[in-house]
Amino acid sequence: KHTFNLSSKMPSQLESAMDALMTVFYNYSGNDGDKYKLNKGELKELLNSELTDFLTSQKDPMLVEKIMNDLDSNKDNEVDFNEFVVLVAALTVACNDFFQEQQKKKK
Amino acid sequence: KHTFNLSSKMPSQLESAMDALMTVFYNYSGNDGDKYKLNKGELKELLNSELTDFLTSQKDPMLVEKIMNDLDSNKDNEVDFNEFVVLVAALTVACNDFFQEQQKKKK
Repeated sequence: KHTFNLSSKMPSQLESAMDALMTVFYNYSGNDGDKYKLNKGELKELLNSELTDFLTSQKDPMLVEKIMNDLDSNKDNEVDFNEFVVLVAALTVACNDFFQEQQKKKK
Repeated sequence: KHTFNLSSKMPSQLESAMDALMTVFYNYSGNDGDKYKLNKGELKELLNSELTDFLTSQKDPMLVEKIMNDLDSNKDNEVDFNEFVVLVAALTVACNDFFQEQQKKKK
């Protein structure tokens, strides 16, 4: 398990979240091929185990394919960390939009 | 404390990280003014307590100002969640680049 000691003392919640993003990425990218990139199989594995509900809630069998094409901005059939962070940011923003809608409905 | 139950069962490491990004943001944005946005004071508080080492390692007294201007893409003098996620992504990518440099030096 890689731990990226971002700070000398106890990491803050935000630092732990950033650390987790890197740790998750490398848990899957390190499996085969380029250690620093996710090939399609590794991306699929990551999505299946890390975002199980998200993936199963989507009915589109081609979803992983589409995500791969969207993410793979440099078209090397692999997803590097920078491309991966874009996915996480987009998903988090989607969750946040959903959260804000719920909050506004409550008023 | 907001918990965004992204999944019915135990959240995965990635889901917890996404949850933490939202929780941290709302811990500070909710202080005053618009509950869903960080004004400059709230951004400064967030950076000081969540990214202490990062901030102190930078000698630039105008750093928060610069970050605010960079993030505030819609120029409303506030940072919303989408703008905040851009900061987190950029910082995480910077940490990752640093990590990869270290790894390559080890070889």
